[in-house]
Amino acid sequence: MLRWEEAPEGPALVLLDQTLLPAEEAELRCTDVPALVEAIRTLAVRGAPLLGIAGAYGVALAAARGYDVEESAGLLERARPTAVNLGRGVRAAADAHRRVLAGGGSAEAAASAALGAAEELHRADAEASRRMASHGLALLGELLPGGGYRLLTHCNSGALVSGGEGTAFAVALAAHRAGELRRLWVDETRPLLQGARLTAFEAARNGMPYSLLADNAAGSLFAAGEVDAVVIGADRIAADGSVANKVGSYPLAVLARYHHVPFVVVAPTTTLDVSTARGDSIEIEQRPGREVTEFTPPRAGADAARDGGVSLAPLGAQAYNPAFDVTPPGLVTAVVTEEGVLSPVTGGGIAELCARSRRVSMS
Amino acid sequence: MLRWEEAPEGPALVLLDQTLLPAEEAELRCTDVPALVEAIRTLAVRGAPLLGIAGAYGVALAAARGYDVEESAGLLERARPTAVNLGRGVRAAADAHRRVLAGGGSAEAAASAALGAAEELHRADAEASRRMASHGLALLGELLPGGGYRLLTHCNSGALVSGGEGTAFAVALAAHRAGELRRLWVDETRPLLQGARLTAFEAARNGMPYSLLADNAAGSLFAAGEVDAVVIGADRIAADGSVANKVGSYPLAVLARYHHVPFVVVAPTTTLDVSTARGDSIEIEQRPGREVTEFTPPRAGADAARDGGVSLAPLGAQAYNPAFDVTPPGLVTAVVTEEGVLSPVTGGGIAELCARSRRVSMS
Repeated sequence: MLRWEEAPEGPALVLLDQTLLPAEEAELRCTDVPALVEAIRTLAVRGAPLLGIAGAYGVALAAARGYDVEESAGLLERARPTAVNLGRGVRAAADAHRRVLAGGGSAEAAASAALGAAEELHRADAEASRRMASHGLALLGELLPGGGYRLLTHCNSGALVSGGEGTAFAVALAAHRAGELRRLWVDETRPLLQGARLTAFEAARNGMPYSLLADNAAGSLFAAGEVDAVVIGADRIAADGSVANKVGSYPLAVLARYHHVPFVVVAPTTTLDVSTARGDSIEIEQRPGREVTEFTPPRAGADAARDGGVSLAPLGAQAYNPAFDVTPPGLVTAVVTEEGVLSPVTGGGIAELCARSRRVSMS
Repeated sequence: MLRWEEAPEGPALVLLDQTLLPAEEAELRCTDVPALVEAIRTLAVRGAPLLGIAGAYGVALAAARGYDVEESAGLLERARPTAVNLGRGVRAAADAHRRVLAGGGSAEAAASAALGAAEELHRADAEASRRMASHGLALLGELLPGGGYRLLTHCNSGALVSGGEGTAFAVALAAHRAGELRRLWVDETRPLLQGARLTAFEAARNGMPYSLLADNAAGSLFAAGEVDAVVIGADRIAADGSVANKVGSYPLAVLARYHHVPFVVVAPTTTLDVSTARGDSIEIEQRPGREVTEFTPPRAGADAARDGGVSLAPLGAQAYNPAFDVTPPGLVTAVVTEEGVLSPVTGGGIAELCARSRRVSMS
């Protein structure tokens, strides 16, 4: 969903512009960091793991084109505060760059090290996707021995967010390939409709049996016994196991608990943030109210989003529009990572997963 | 929001076309029953009590214009199956009509009796609104002795659904007039956005402090302790106290229970349906999937809705789109009617409320 391109006029980071899906598959060429920051803010590129990769390539881009790398890294890190992977990716590339310079290397060698770090992150994320899908599928087999899963998902967590096939969506896709996916229930995910626009697009492309629903209608599915498990991604997991994910995830966790349905979070260990102690210390991004009060047709893209869309509410209506919510660990049945499955979700388990992933990345 | 008009070319039922709000306040003139059925189906006129009044005037219209009254009554009753008030209003006017004919009265006298029945329903509903608001405000005072209420509501239950000021919205409005409404949280109410388009419109017109939110974000408000009570209307209440209301009500009831927040249903006794024994025997209307897969700008109105709007999802996407959900009585703190407050909500209490309202209407 993103690639590095070397061109005679200098390198560029080329992204699939997700604001235009599903109407149009168009690419966005970023040749400097402000363009990439804008792409991140307008959600042309989004999704926890992909943001990390994009952030790392952003640093490599600044270095290759001779911009101030430290300043660029700061701009990129602040583009979306809740996404821990973004900061992590940015720092991985910036650290690699800094190390070469500190060791007396040339600017060119430092730029090449930053690019190497981004490429490594990209490759590692694809591998992590494969392993999460395999661990997640095994977990579903244990939790739901009858097979024929009806899975409910929220927002988008597939190839569009990842260097590979994604997180939660990759688990559903693995179940589909194993002949065990009876239905993927796709929450449309207001206000930006990532479920309707992106997850439905990925489900259709993979020939999966899916149905879209207004987020509101999930309660009816639970009440009717039509949901075997919820599988979602995560934007940040705190040290106590609290999960920050797209707004609307927490109500699903409460519904799942009320109906005794497993609530499974699928995320790479890069999403773990042990420096944030508890769920209530996670900074929640508040997005513009007009994402709720106005509707912008997808195909109109980022320019139209800036100009505003069709009013859905009276002029001057205020809106409360948090991008994420936080689900406490007690409501999470399991966290599936590339390093294995954590269940029950405890602070000790999170610390252990982190240690294991550090050992792996240093080996 | 609707009125009977006698014109030289014959009578008409004039409705505010709610599909055009908030962009436009335009009227729709129905001069025959098929036009009214279409207005009901496209939600140009909607809301439990108002549908009852519209149905009764529809029968009066058929009678006054010499159409087959029994056939018209059947068409009207079937226009929206979950709305118990619609059938009840239709039958009230049709019974009045039939009684006059059976007693040897003229067609003209029968038509006049049907109109009288509709007008009586209209007047009684306005009076019921006043009494629900007063009972509801007293209940909030008991449940929340600190005052300064932050109320969360879903869908639209104000003057637009009623012969008076509405049901749940009328309670919030009474709190506002009493200086006790700190905030009205307005769920946008996907897929048709009645909260954003209609409730926000009514809140703004009444100068109430309100904020709109994507339905998904309600969980974050509960978790932050920002909701003191949920107040919603009802489309049908079964004999056991199960409440059918706009889809998305049930998830709010589960969230309210999880957070120990009162969940209050405000509905006239005409919404009680003792002939439906339990919640799971309430017929739930399934609406077209394209209400979820496409977006139709409000100002484009009913014609555009028929033609289809902007695609939000890939071509051919299927959607699950129930119009209502059912909340079991155990999750409902209280049912507020014009005859008083029922809490806890039990089958015995529902039966007693019904008996009381029958005594009142026969007295």
